Amino acid sequence: MAYGYPGGVTFPVVGMVGGGQLARMTHEAGIPLGIKFKLLSDTPQDSAAQVVGDVVIGDYRDLDTLRSFARGCDVITFDHEHVPTEHLRALEADGIPVRPGPDALVHAQDKGVMRARLDAIGVPCPRHRIVSDPADVERFAAEGAGFPVILKTVRGGYDGKGVWVVRSSKEAAEPFRAGVPVLAEEKVDFARELAANIVRSPHGQAVAYPVVESIQVDGVCDTVIAPAPGLDPELAGQAQELALRIAQELDVVGHLAVELFETADGRILVNELAMRPHNSGHWTQDGAITSQFANHVRAVLDLPLGDPRPRARWTVMANVLGGDYPDMYYAYLHCMARDPQLKIHMYGKDVKPGRKVGHVNTYGDDLADVRERAAHAAGYLRGTITE
Amino acid sequence: MAYGYPGGVTFPVVGMVGGGQLARMTHEAGIPLGIKFKLLSDTPQDSAAQVVGDVVIGDYRDLDTLRSFARGCDVITFDHEHVPTEHLRALEADGIPVRPGPDALVHAQDKGVMRARLDAIGVPCPRHRIVSDPADVERFAAEGAGFPVILKTVRGGYDGKGVWVVRSSKEAAEPFRAGVPVLAEEKVDFARELAANIVRSPHGQAVAYPVVESIQVDGVCDTVIAPAPGLDPELAGQAQELALRIAQELDVVGHLAVELFETADGRILVNELAMRPHNSGHWTQDGAITSQFANHVRAVLDLPLGDPRPRARWTVMANVLGGDYPDMYYAYLHCMARDPQLKIHMYGKDVKPGRKVGHVNTYGDDLADVRERAAHAAGYLRGTITE
Repeated sequence: MAYGYPGGVTFPVVGMVGGGQLARMTHEAGIPLGIKFKLLSDTPQDSAAQVVGDVVIGDYRDLDTLRSFARGCDVITFDHEHVPTEHLRALEADGIPVRPGPDALVHAQDKGVMRARLDAIGVPCPRHRIVSDPADVERFAAEGAGFPVILKTVRGGYDGKGVWVVRSSKEAAEPFRAGVPVLAEEKVDFARELAANIVRSPHGQAVAYPVVESIQVDGVCDTVIAPAPGLDPELAGQAQELALRIAQELDVVGHLAVELFETADGRILVNELAMRPHNSGHWTQDGAITSQFANHVRAVLDLPLGDPRPRARWTVMANVLGGDYPDMYYAYLHCMARDPQLKIHMYGKDVKPGRKVGHVNTYGDDLADVRERAAHAAGYLRGTITE
Repeated sequence: MAYGYPGGVTFPVVGMVGGGQLARMTHEAGIPLGIKFKLLSDTPQDSAAQVVGDVVIGDYRDLDTLRSFARGCDVITFDHEHVPTEHLRALEADGIPVRPGPDALVHAQDKGVMRARLDAIGVPCPRHRIVSDPADVERFAAEGAGFPVILKTVRGGYDGKGVWVVRSSKEAAEPFRAGVPVLAEEKVDFARELAANIVRSPHGQAVAYPVVESIQVDGVCDTVIAPAPGLDPELAGQAQELALRIAQELDVVGHLAVELFETADGRILVNELAMRPHNSGHWTQDGAITSQFANHVRAVLDLPLGDPRPRARWTVMANVLGGDYPDMYYAYLHCMARDPQLKIHMYGKDVKPGRKVGHVNTYGDDLADVRERAAHAAGYLRGTITE
């Protein structure tokens, strides 16, 4: 890498593609690191574009735009997984380090590729198969998965979008309408959802965060508890090892979130992979020695990684979703007054019902108290709690 | 205040005058708060201008520039104390809240005004008097202060600049050459220096951080230890009460740093005041529940203040000064590798010998270890420690 920091100080330029809240919080974490952060954002109103100094407005799907953006950067990384693989290969051919690289990132972009690869390296997954039509879904269920079956478009889904739960092949027409490949998965009768988050650098250093519990509501992450309460230490270790092994086998660089199902009989199965800072790691901003965002920046620059250990017995993250009222400012003021220890993280996004517009972190020794404080603040900001 | 956040979300715009590292770190702290941060900076290369999205390049000494900048802001606050008082009054007359206001800020701008006011409210200070020439310095010494005498220009000094220690009236010519008022102060035979940092909001809410020890080298802050080791709890309480009283009497809004001398016989005397985030409060970024920067933003917006309590038994801040070698990147990499818990804060400034270009924070239970880690990192980055 040829570092080109203005004024002769050779601190590098990290280019991030995508202007969402993950880029916003990565910029925040990059400021103390002294790195220069450059953003490619769709619009100037995007969450990160509001706060970053060096912003290029452009379309990441346009290769010329990406190439021009990348020329000012020492490394390219991502707020989202939507950049076409062939564009990433073109950047690499231009000599720009892309981290995670296209060969790794495809596993977070394409659920079919991900499942095939995890099978090949012996990672436990729910039963799954690419299906071609509703009759094929029927066969998949009959082969042992049973109904309901989960159908997912292999590309482009998130936060419950691009995902269907069907009770019979009669309900399975819609996922096939777009003409894109569809993955069928068994509906796992899980006890709870976990996430094993790790960060890996190009030279292979890796750190593992404590395994967390992730509580979803309507397919959207609602609450994360770090560490996962009552988790068998052996299973926690297995989950961390699994995430580290996936990162190594897939050559992931940066933050890797491995979303897991914990079954009632004490097994873990991989649900999803994300190769970027992830909602299940937001607790680290206030609850770990080094946040996922700081470690992601350190990893993509091949800097030594920071200590991932927790700073508190318990940390709870609760997402703030938009409610009916577009102005959160007075609710925000109320939350600060009620709980002077509350850590609020707002994304600068317009409030729309159900949209993630921020999150709160709380921490302490008493889990019930820590959870109540996070839930109250998130609910109050959304407008579902009115006292 | 009429909040004008784009997109209908009524989060306010904080305008900060001055593009130094304090503005850089205030922006960093403002990102999670969801506020919009606007900067008036001398040049695009300034520390904060590199990382802030909304930057106006201009001269704060020009009233038209200030007025135009302020029109887009809901409140104006400061990275430094150099904005002329009459300009601040003009902004107030335009209806822009200025926090701290000119009547408070003048006490941090003019050491003569500060001393007179502290005398009037009964705050203990070193012996002092405005002096007119070297013969007058002789008289000041003879009246009881004795030599050496400290001479300070009443305006414009910082980090040892604008300050002289004279052993006789023969050495006292230089301070008078500029033709600006000069304050004489006794050289206090102090045991150590402390700082009592508080944050106060317009409606009078205030929080006090633990009193810290500040170790100066060649007139520049080198190390801050939080809390001050072995400080008599009664004296710590007195120092906090003193800082809160000064803030109330002077109507300070935002962060107030009260730099103190602790005498060998257990008294405290006020050395300096700063009405902005301050070097003696940088430890709060990693060592307190709410940082001085976040609380400064909350205060100037009259939001409820965050908890100032420490998160660790000991936190140590060490300033990183420039050394002979302009490129710190490999030293920085070494420090990260040596101490994965180290918190580095770089300012993006060109390295010049003796210039503050960053700081490090360390924390833990063992003070000797925490101090060694901070001192090693700061020394290694400067180039004075080579292993």
